Amino acid sequence: MKQVRVGLVGIGAVGTELVKILRERKFPASDIRILARSERDETVAGETFHVLPASAPNAFQGLDYVFFAGTEGAKGASRQYGWQAVEQGAVAIDNGDDFRMDDRVPLVVPEVNPEALANHRGFIANPNCSTIIAMMALGPLHRAARIRRFTASTYQSVSGTGQAAIDELDRQVRQYAAGEPLQSEMYPRQIAFNVLPAIGGLKDTMPGYTSEEAKMLFETRKILGDDAIRVSATCVRVPVFCGHAEALNIEFERPVSPEEAREILANAPGVTVTDDPAAHEWPHPLRCAGKDDVLVGRVRPDDSVENGLCLFVARDNIRKGAALNAVQIAEALL
Amino acid sequence: MKQVRVGLVGIGAVGTELVKILRERKFPASDIRILARSERDETVAGETFHVLPASAPNAFQGLDYVFFAGTEGAKGASRQYGWQAVEQGAVAIDNGDDFRMDDRVPLVVPEVNPEALANHRGFIANPNCSTIIAMMALGPLHRAARIRRFTASTYQSVSGTGQAAIDELDRQVRQYAAGEPLQSEMYPRQIAFNVLPAIGGLKDTMPGYTSEEAKMLFETRKILGDDAIRVSATCVRVPVFCGHAEALNIEFERPVSPEEAREILANAPGVTVTDDPAAHEWPHPLRCAGKDDVLVGRVRPDDSVENGLCLFVARDNIRKGAALNAVQIAEALL
Repeated sequence: MKQVRVGLVGIGAVGTELVKILRERKFPASDIRILARSERDETVAGETFHVLPASAPNAFQGLDYVFFAGTEGAKGASRQYGWQAVEQGAVAIDNGDDFRMDDRVPLVVPEVNPEALANHRGFIANPNCSTIIAMMALGPLHRAARIRRFTASTYQSVSGTGQAAIDELDRQVRQYAAGEPLQSEMYPRQIAFNVLPAIGGLKDTMPGYTSEEAKMLFETRKILGDDAIRVSATCVRVPVFCGHAEALNIEFERPVSPEEAREILANAPGVTVTDDPAAHEWPHPLRCAGKDDVLVGRVRPDDSVENGLCLFVARDNIRKGAALNAVQIAEALL
Repeated sequence: MKQVRVGLVGIGAVGTELVKILRERKFPASDIRILARSERDETVAGETFHVLPASAPNAFQGLDYVFFAGTEGAKGASRQYGWQAVEQGAVAIDNGDDFRMDDRVPLVVPEVNPEALANHRGFIANPNCSTIIAMMALGPLHRAARIRRFTASTYQSVSGTGQAAIDELDRQVRQYAAGEPLQSEMYPRQIAFNVLPAIGGLKDTMPGYTSEEAKMLFETRKILGDDAIRVSATCVRVPVFCGHAEALNIEFERPVSPEEAREILANAPGVTVTDDPAAHEWPHPLRCAGKDDVLVGRVRPDDSVENGLCLFVARDNIRKGAALNAVQIAEALL
């Protein structure tokens, strides 16, 4: 296979996972150039890289694909350098949310809307982690029976916030075990032994909703190419290190039985149905950690509404929520 | 005030909280007789009680009110002794779920349906903790604008399972801090740093749903006296010691604006509106621990459906979920 040259801007939790996934999947990268604020040597996923400054005039020259791993420090890097990377000949794949709703930029979950990659202009956006997880299960069901509306209540792990939030949960739990007072820095309230029903700031485009909740509506419409679909989400942070879960109540255009839904999902790429509650088999964050597939279970009728169905889904948010999906976009383009 | 004699069967988490609340609220109890499997001295909420066997022939003689605090060991005690207590002249107030759907037994949240206490036959049931929490917010809204349907996704703390589950989360977190393997005994999967989307066994009366989820439907209909109301719940255990939270999507018979909903809720007994997301003011489990009121926030339109509204609610599940509600039932009867 032809070897390509890969760039990576940002080496937080997502960037680190990206390097891991590129290696695991034997992505044909002859070279990985890591770009950040300053020049230095840094070990990422067990490899030592000579990090170069992203601000250098020809930082992206010679690269085929550049991943913008936008958590924490690297937030906004694609706004600063994204189109510059494209001008210098690379395809930019952006994990951040700066360009997701930009008409020039396809928003892609490779298993769900690979067709959106056709005729791209060198800049492709990775959806938000909660949206990707929902789309993996809802995309195949939408194609089969058209979704009119869904509601989502999320159970999102701290790794979605970044390494500093992982460290905060770890620190608070150790403080608890040591009998010390628990200190909060990253989150406005204690995250250990608590749930925080607000992710992101309030969004003008969707009054009363947070940015994370608004993304679930707007990104879903763009990915499914269906502006009629209606979505209301409640996004909640839970004291889990890794793995996002979501409770979904779905309304279809026609009846979809749990049996039909399970069959559609069992045949969907990147989906594993795990649905035997009597044997305690349901999706949960620990179960999906380090795995690629989204887990779907608790498939049951929602008889409180016409053509209703309930699901519970879980997925490793760092892996597929961001890093794997980004690498899969590059693979689809190869 | 006339002094009454109180009995209490079961001294797990709920029983202990009951004693605390009876004392705090200065319930006019001349005597608290604690009944359990075997005779012994035991310290409950800082007081030493001489525990008597519930199986003694005249165990309930002379008592005015008997609380059945049905978690863990005391589960089923009301089935065994409930009507016997009534025959011996007491009013039985049952926290367990054995009689909630029994036509002879009113199911009461005192702030929501006190009228159900009229003409009781000596046996009154306390609703399930998740139902009580939802009803405190939904009852007043239902009276104002009739709820047609709601969906609930819950974030339930381990204290709802009982003391052994509190101990399990504590133990797992200490094992984590000590770098030891985490051991699960109470729950079928690790609860620390995880969420478990199944509470209770599967329920024949509501295929695919767990008992906890089915309660949310059937108990709601009985409490609100409205068999037309439709409910679908997903009940999820989260690694929180105390305090249940719920994300609610509600559909009314007529439009209800967030402003109107906040006003109704601000005037509802036992409800505190805490709704300023920009200042990080929303209901969360740590905020409600040890408090009586249910907290309601994240009040916003659900434009994905006709006459839709979203809420996020949280409450100390041990306190109001079970113990306070039971004491309030007795107070209403005094």
